[in-house]
Amino acid sequence: MNIERFGVVQRRAEMVLHAHTLYIGGQVASDTSADIEGQTREVLLGIERLLESVGGDRTHLLTVRILLARREDYAGLNRVWDAFFPFGHAPARACTLAELIDPAWRVEMIATAALPNR
Amino acid sequence: MNIERFGVVQRRAEMVLHAHTLYIGGQVASDTSADIEGQTREVLLGIERLLESVGGDRTHLLTVRILLARREDYAGLNRVWDAFFPFGHAPARACTLAELIDPAWRVEMIATAALPNR
Amino acid sequence: MNIERFGVVQRRAEMVLHAHTLYIGGQVASDTSADIEGQTREVLLGIERLLESVGGDRTHLLTVRILLARREDYAGLNRVWDAFFPFGHAPARACTLAELIDPAWRVEMIATAALPNR
Repeated sequence: MNIERFGVVQRRAEMVLHAHTLYIGGQVASDTSADIEGQTREVLLGIERLLESVGGDRTHLLTVRILLARREDYAGLNRVWDAFFPFGHAPARACTLAELIDPAWRVEMIATAALPNR
Repeated sequence: MNIERFGVVQRRAEMVLHAHTLYIGGQVASDTSADIEGQTREVLLGIERLLESVGGDRTHLLTVRILLARREDYAGLNRVWDAFFPFGHAPARACTLAELIDPAWRVEMIATAALPNR
Repeated sequence: MNIERFGVVQRRAEMVLHAHTLYIGGQVASDTSADIEGQTREVLLGIERLLESVGGDRTHLLTVRILLARREDYAGLNRVWDAFFPFGHAPARACTLAELIDPAWRVEMIATAALPNR
Protein backbone atom coordinates (compact mmCIF):
# COMPACT_ATOMS: atom_id res chain seq x y z
CA MET A 1 0.00 0.00 0.00
CA ASN A 2 3.08 2.18 0.13
CA ILE A 3 2.16 4.21 3.19
CA GLU A 4 4.67 4.53 6.02
CA ARG A 5 3.59 6.13 9.30
CA PHE A 6 5.74 7.69 12.04
CA GLY A 7 4.81 8.70 15.60
CA VAL A 8 1.65 6.63 15.65
CA VAL A 9 -0.96 6.93 18.38
CA GLN A 10 -4.66 6.05 18.22
CA ARG A 11 -5.67 9.50 17.00
CA ARG A 12 -3.02 10.20 14.37
CA ALA A 13 0.34 9.60 12.82
CA GLU A 14 2.71 12.49 13.44
CA MET A 15 4.18 12.06 9.93
CA VAL A 16 3.12 9.98 6.93
CA LEU A 17 5.22 9.03 3.90
CA HIS A 18 3.75 8.31 0.47
CA ALA A 19 5.14 8.71 -3.05
CA HIS A 20 8.38 10.38 -1.90
CA THR A 21 6.39 13.00 0.01
CA LEU A 22 6.18 13.49 3.79
CA TYR A 23 3.01 14.84 5.37
CA ILE A 24 3.36 16.26 8.89
CA GLY A 25 0.31 16.85 11.10
CA GLY A 26 -0.36 20.06 13.02
CA GLN A 27 2.65 20.96 15.20
CA VAL A 28 2.45 23.16 18.27
CA ALA A 29 4.79 24.12 21.12
CA SER A 30 4.77 22.08 24.32
CA ASP A 31 6.14 25.03 26.30
CA THR A 32 3.05 27.22 26.09
CA SER A 33 4.53 29.73 28.53
CA ALA A 34 6.92 30.80 25.76
CA ASP A 35 6.20 33.92 23.71
CA ILE A 36 5.69 33.82 19.94
CA GLU A 37 9.42 33.67 19.21
CA GLY A 38 9.90 30.77 21.60
CA GLN A 39 6.86 28.88 20.33
CA THR A 40 7.81 29.45 16.67
CA ARG A 41 11.33 28.16 17.34
CA GLU A 42 10.04 25.06 19.15
CA VAL A 43 7.58 24.26 16.36
CA LEU A 44 10.15 24.67 13.57
CA LEU A 45 12.76 22.60 15.45
CA GLY A 46 10.11 19.93 16.13
CA ILE A 47 9.33 19.72 12.42
CA GLU A 48 13.04 19.49 11.63
CA ARG A 49 13.45 16.68 14.18
CA LEU A 50 10.75 14.70 12.37
CA LEU A 51 12.56 15.24 9.05
CA GLU A 52 15.88 14.25 10.60
CA SER A 53 14.35 10.91 11.62
CA VAL A 54 14.20 10.04 7.90
CA GLY A 55 17.52 11.64 6.96
CA GLY A 56 16.24 15.11 6.06
CA ASP A 57 16.34 18.62 7.46
CA ARG A 58 14.69 22.05 7.13
CA THR A 59 15.78 22.40 3.49
CA HIS A 60 13.50 19.51 2.50
CA LEU A 61 10.30 21.40 3.38
CA LEU A 62 7.94 21.96 0.45
CA THR A 63 5.07 23.84 2.13
CA VAL A 64 4.24 25.21 5.54
CA ARG A 65 0.76 26.37 6.47
CA ILE A 66 1.00 28.74 9.43
CA LEU A 67 -1.96 29.35 11.73
CA LEU A 68 -1.38 32.30 14.01
CA ALA A 69 -3.57 33.01 17.03
CA ARG A 70 -2.87 36.76 17.31
CA ARG A 71 -2.19 39.32 14.58
CA GLU A 72 0.30 41.20 16.78
CA ASP A 73 2.53 38.08 16.78
CA TYR A 74 3.17 38.26 13.03
CA ALA A 75 6.43 40.21 13.31
CA GLY A 76 7.84 37.88 15.98
CA LEU A 77 6.89 34.81 13.96
CA ASN A 78 8.73 36.21 10.94
CA ARG A 79 11.83 37.17 12.90
CA VAL A 80 12.36 33.53 13.91
CA TRP A 81 11.18 32.13 10.55
CA ASP A 82 13.44 34.34 8.43
CA ALA A 83 16.49 33.43 10.52
CA PHE A 84 15.63 29.70 10.37
CA PHE A 85 15.95 29.13 6.62
CA PRO A 86 19.17 29.44 4.63
CA PHE A 87 18.46 31.74 1.67
CA GLY A 88 16.92 29.82 -1.22
CA HIS A 89 15.62 26.98 0.94
CA ALA A 90 12.40 28.37 2.43
CA PRO A 91 9.22 26.48 1.50
CA ALA A 92 6.05 27.84 -0.09
CA ARG A 93 4.03 29.19 2.80
CA ALA A 94 0.67 30.66 3.72
CA CYS A 95 -0.16 32.34 7.02
CA THR A 96 -3.59 33.32 8.28
CA LEU A 97 -5.06 34.00 11.66
CA ALA A 98 -7.01 31.18 13.34
CA GLU A 99 -8.41 30.25 16.69
CA LEU A 100 -6.33 27.28 17.86
CA ILE A 101 -7.73 24.40 19.92
CA ASP A 102 -5.68 25.26 23.02
CA PRO A 103 -5.84 29.03 23.67
CA ALA A 104 -2.29 28.85 25.08
CA TRP A 105 -0.92 27.94 21.63
CA ARG A 106 0.12 31.01 19.67
CA VAL A 107 1.11 29.27 16.45
CA GLU A 108 0.44 25.95 14.73
CA MET A 109 2.13 24.70 11.56
CA ILE A 110 1.19 22.01 9.05
CA ALA A 111 4.00 20.96 6.73
CA THR A 112 4.85 18.81 3.74
CA ALA A 113 8.38 17.83 2.76
CA ALA A 114 10.32 15.91 0.17
CA LEU A 115 11.74 12.55 1.18
CA PRO A 116 15.53 12.87 0.98
CA ASN A 117 17.28 10.45 -1.35
CA ARG A 118 18.36 7.51 0.75
CA MET B 1 -1.89 15.32 -18.39
CA ASN B 2 -2.32 12.60 -15.81
CA ILE B 3 -5.15 14.20 -13.87
CA GLU B 4 -8.29 12.18 -13.18
CA ARG B 5 -11.33 13.94 -11.68
CA PHE B 6 -14.29 12.41 -9.80
CA GLY B 7 -17.64 13.97 -8.87
CA VAL B 8 -17.32 16.82 -11.33
CA VAL B 9 -19.65 19.83 -11.35
CA GLN B 10 -18.97 23.32 -12.71
CA ARG B 11 -17.50 24.56 -9.45
CA ARG B 12 -15.25 21.66 -8.47
CA ALA B 13 -14.22 18.07 -8.61
CA GLU B 14 -15.06 16.21 -5.42
CA MET B 15 -11.83 14.20 -5.73
CA VAL B 16 -8.79 14.53 -7.97
CA LEU B 17 -6.12 11.91 -8.69
CA HIS B 18 -2.56 12.75 -9.64
CA ALA B 19 0.75 10.93 -9.15
CA HIS B 20 -0.78 8.13 -7.03
CA THR B 21 -2.30 10.69 -4.67
CA LEU B 22 -5.99 11.50 -4.15
CA TYR B 23 -7.05 15.03 -3.20
CA ILE B 24 -10.53 15.38 -1.68
CA GLY B 25 -12.24 18.78 -1.47
CA GLY B 26 -13.95 20.12 1.65
CA GLN B 27 -16.48 17.60 2.98
CA VAL B 28 -19.43 18.53 5.18
CA ALA B 29 -22.55 16.77 6.47
CA SER B 30 -25.78 17.01 4.50
CA ASP B 31 -27.83 16.32 7.64
CA THR B 32 -27.11 19.60 9.38
CA SER B 33 -29.63 18.83 12.12
CA ALA B 34 -27.20 16.20 13.44
CA ASP B 35 -24.97 17.00 16.41
CA ILE B 36 -21.17 16.94 16.19
CA GLU B 37 -20.99 13.16 16.52
CA GLY B 38 -23.52 12.67 13.73
CA GLN B 39 -21.90 15.22 11.46
CA THR B 40 -18.40 13.82 12.08
CA ARG B 41 -19.60 10.30 11.28
CA GLU B 42 -21.32 11.43 8.07
CA VAL B 43 -18.24 13.35 6.90
CA LEU B 44 -15.85 10.46 7.61
CA LEU B 45 -18.13 7.92 5.92
CA GLY B 46 -18.53 10.26 2.94
CA ILE B 47 -14.76 10.47 2.59
CA GLU B 48 -14.51 6.69 2.82
CA ARG B 49 -17.18 6.31 0.13
CA LEU B 50 -15.08 8.44 -2.22
CA LEU B 51 -12.05 6.26 -1.50
CA GLU B 52 -14.08 3.08 -2.02
CA SER B 53 -14.98 4.31 -5.52
CA VAL B 54 -11.32 3.82 -6.46
CA GLY B 55 -10.81 0.63 -4.46
CA GLY B 56 -9.60 2.19 -1.19
CA ASP B 57 -10.89 2.72 2.32
CA ARG B 58 -10.20 4.73 5.51
CA THR B 59 -6.75 3.17 5.94
CA HIS B 60 -5.55 4.92 2.76
CA LEU B 61 -5.89 8.40 4.23
CA LEU B 62 -2.64 10.37 4.43
CA THR B 63 -3.83 13.66 5.94
CA VAL B 64 -7.03 15.16 7.24
CA ARG B 65 -7.41 18.86 7.94
CA ILE B 66 -10.28 19.36 10.36
CA LEU B 67 -12.10 22.69 10.63
CA LEU B 68 -14.35 22.82 13.66
CA ALA B 69 -17.00 25.51 14.13
CA ARG B 70 -17.23 25.33 17.94
CA ARG B 71 -14.56 24.59 20.52
CA GLU B 72 -17.02 22.71 22.74
CA ASP B 73 -17.46 20.14 19.93
CA TYR B 74 -13.83 18.98 20.16
CA ALA B 75 -14.51 16.07 22.52
CA GLY B 76 -17.43 14.77 20.44
CA LEU B 77 -15.40 15.02 17.24
CA ASN B 78 -12.63 12.96 18.81
CA ARG B 79 -14.99 10.29 20.20
CA VAL B 80 -16.18 9.48 16.68
CA TRP B 81 -12.74 9.98 15.09
CA ASP B 82 -10.89 7.72 17.55
CA ALA B 83 -13.42 4.91 17.05
CA PHE B 84 -13.27 5.26 13.27
CA PHE B 85 -9.63 4.33 12.68
CA PRO B 86 -8.11 0.92 13.38
CA PHE B 87 -4.99 1.46 15.52
CA GLY B 88 -2.00 2.31 13.35
CA HIS B 89 -4.05 3.54 10.41
CA ALA B 90 -5.03 7.09 11.40
CA PRO B 91 -3.70 9.83 9.09
CA ALA B 92 -1.63 12.88 10.00
CA ARG B 93 -4.15 15.47 11.12
CA ALA B 94 -4.53 19.09 12.14
CA CYS B 95 -7.62 20.59 13.76
CA THR B 96 -8.34 24.27 14.31
CA LEU B 97 -11.46 26.31 14.82
CA ALA B 98 -12.92 28.09 11.81
CA GLU B 99 -16.06 29.86 10.75
CA LEU B 100 -17.62 27.62 8.10
CA ILE B 101 -19.55 28.92 5.09
CA ASP B 102 -22.87 27.47 6.26
CA PRO B 103 -23.36 28.19 9.99
CA ALA B 104 -25.27 24.89 10.31
CA TRP B 105 -22.10 22.93 9.52
CA ARG B 106 -20.21 22.00 12.67
CA VAL B 107 -17.21 20.34 11.03
CA GLU B 108 -15.54 20.33 7.63
CA MET B 109 -12.69 18.04 6.56
CA ILE B 110 -10.17 18.27 3.72
CA ALA B 111 -8.32 15.02 3.02
CA THR B 112 -5.56 13.48 0.95
CA ALA B 113 -5.14 9.75 0.43
CA ALA B 114 -2.91 7.23 -1.26
CA LEU B 115 -4.23 5.57 -4.40
CA PRO B 116 -4.57 1.86 -3.60
CA ASN B 117 -2.60 -0.48 -5.83
CA ARG B 118 -4.94 -1.59 -8.60
CA MET C 1 17.12 16.34 -3.73
CA ASN C 2 14.58 16.87 -6.50
CA ILE C 3 13.12 20.13 -5.23
CA GLU C 4 12.81 23.06 -7.62
CA ARG C 5 11.83 26.48 -6.26
CA PHE C 6 10.36 29.46 -8.11
CA GLY C 7 9.97 33.08 -6.99
CA VAL C 8 12.45 32.76 -4.16
CA VAL C 9 12.90 35.43 -1.49
CA GLN C 10 14.27 35.01 2.04
CA ARG C 11 10.88 34.21 3.52
CA ARG C 12 9.47 31.79 0.97
CA ALA C 13 9.35 30.29 -2.48
CA GLU C 14 6.27 31.36 -4.39
CA MET C 15 6.03 27.88 -5.96
CA VAL C 16 7.83 24.60 -5.27
CA LEU C 17 8.04 21.56 -7.54
CA HIS C 18 8.52 18.02 -6.25
CA ALA C 19 7.47 14.62 -7.60
CA HIS C 20 5.52 16.09 -10.57
CA THR C 21 3.48 18.24 -8.18
CA LEU C 22 3.53 22.04 -7.84
CA TYR C 23 2.86 23.67 -4.46
CA ILE C 24 1.88 27.35 -4.55
CA GLY C 25 2.03 29.50 -1.41
CA GLY C 26 -0.77 31.80 -0.24
CA GLN C 27 -1.81 34.17 -3.06
CA VAL C 28 -3.53 37.48 -2.48
CA ALA C 29 -4.43 40.51 -4.61
CA SER C 30 -2.00 43.43 -4.84
CA ASP C 31 -4.83 45.82 -5.75
CA THR C 32 -6.54 45.78 -2.36
CA SER C 33 -8.92 48.56 -3.41
CA ALA C 34 -10.67 46.03 -5.69
CA ASP C 35 -13.90 44.38 -4.55
CA ILE C 36 -14.22 40.62 -4.11
CA GLU C 37 -14.71 39.99 -7.83
CA GLY C 38 -11.61 42.02 -8.69
CA GLN C 39 -9.50 40.40 -5.98
CA THR C 40 -10.67 36.90 -6.90
CA ARG C 41 -9.81 37.52 -10.56
CA GLU C 42 -6.37 38.86 -9.71
CA VAL C 43 -5.59 35.91 -7.43
CA LEU C 44 -6.73 33.30 -9.97
CA LEU C 45 -4.82 34.98 -12.81
CA GLY C 46 -1.74 35.23 -10.59
CA ILE C 47 -1.91 31.50 -9.90
CA GLU C 48 -2.31 30.81 -13.61
CA ARG C 49 0.71 33.01 -14.39
CA LEU C 50 2.80 30.85 -12.04
CA LEU C 51 1.58 27.71 -13.79
CA GLU C 52 2.29 29.23 -17.21
CA SER C 53 5.90 29.75 -16.17
CA VAL C 54 6.29 25.96 -16.21
CA GLY C 55 4.11 25.36 -19.27
CA GLY C 56 0.78 24.84 -17.51
CA ASP C 57 -2.48 26.68 -17.08
CA ARG C 58 -5.65 26.73 -14.95
CA THR C 59 -6.64 23.20 -16.03
CA HIS C 60 -3.60 21.78 -14.20
CA LEU C 61 -4.87 22.78 -10.76
CA LEU C 62 -5.46 19.87 -8.38
CA THR C 63 -6.67 21.68 -5.25
CA VAL C 64 -7.46 25.20 -4.18
CA ARG C 65 -7.96 26.15 -0.54
CA ILE C 66 -9.94 29.39 -0.38
CA LEU C 67 -9.83 31.64 2.68
CA LEU C 68 -12.50 34.31 2.57
CA ALA C 69 -12.48 37.32 4.89
CA ARG C 70 -16.22 38.10 4.76
CA ARG C 71 -19.18 35.75 4.41
CA GLU C 72 -21.10 38.25 2.26
CA ASP C 73 -18.37 37.93 -0.41
CA TYR C 74 -19.13 34.25 -1.06
CA ALA C 75 -21.47 34.88 -4.01
CA GLY C 76 -19.04 37.28 -5.70
CA LEU C 77 -16.16 34.85 -5.25
CA ASN C 78 -18.18 32.11 -6.90
CA ARG C 79 -19.30 34.30 -9.82
CA VAL C 80 -15.70 34.84 -10.85
CA TRP C 81 -14.59 31.29 -9.93
CA ASP C 82 -17.37 29.54 -11.88
CA ALA C 83 -16.63 31.60 -15.01
CA PHE C 84 -12.88 30.96 -14.69
CA PHE C 85 -12.85 27.18 -15.16
CA PRO C 86 -13.88 25.33 -18.33
CA PHE C 87 -16.42 22.67 -17.33
CA GLY C 88 -14.68 19.51 -16.12
CA HIS C 89 -11.43 21.26 -15.24
CA ALA C 90 -12.14 22.80 -11.84
CA PRO C 91 -9.95 21.53 -8.97
CA ALA C 92 -11.04 20.02 -5.67
CA ARG C 93 -11.69 22.99 -3.43
CA ALA C 94 -12.52 23.96 0.13
CA CYS C 95 -13.62 27.41 1.25
CA THR C 96 -13.93 28.67 4.81
CA LEU C 97 -13.93 32.07 6.42
CA ALA C 98 -10.68 33.29 7.96
CA GLU C 99 -9.13 36.45 9.27
CA LEU C 100 -6.35 37.29 6.80
CA ILE C 101 -3.06 38.92 7.79
CA ASP C 102 -3.80 42.18 5.93
CA PRO C 103 -7.37 43.29 6.66
CA ALA C 104 -7.53 44.79 3.13
CA TRP C 105 -7.29 41.32 1.60
CA ARG C 106 -10.70 39.81 0.98
CA VAL C 107 -9.57 36.42 -0.31
CA GLU C 108 -6.44 34.27 -0.15
CA MET C 109 -5.87 31.02 -2.07
CA ILE C 110 -3.42 28.15 -1.55
CA ALA C 111 -3.09 25.82 -4.54
CA THR C 112 -1.50 22.62 -5.74
CA ALA C 113 -1.18 21.65 -9.38
CA ALA C 114 0.09 18.90 -11.64
CA LEU C 115 3.31 19.54 -13.50
CA PRO C 116 2.44 19.51 -17.21
CA ASN C 117 4.26 16.96 -19.32
CA ARG C 118 7.26 18.75 -20.80
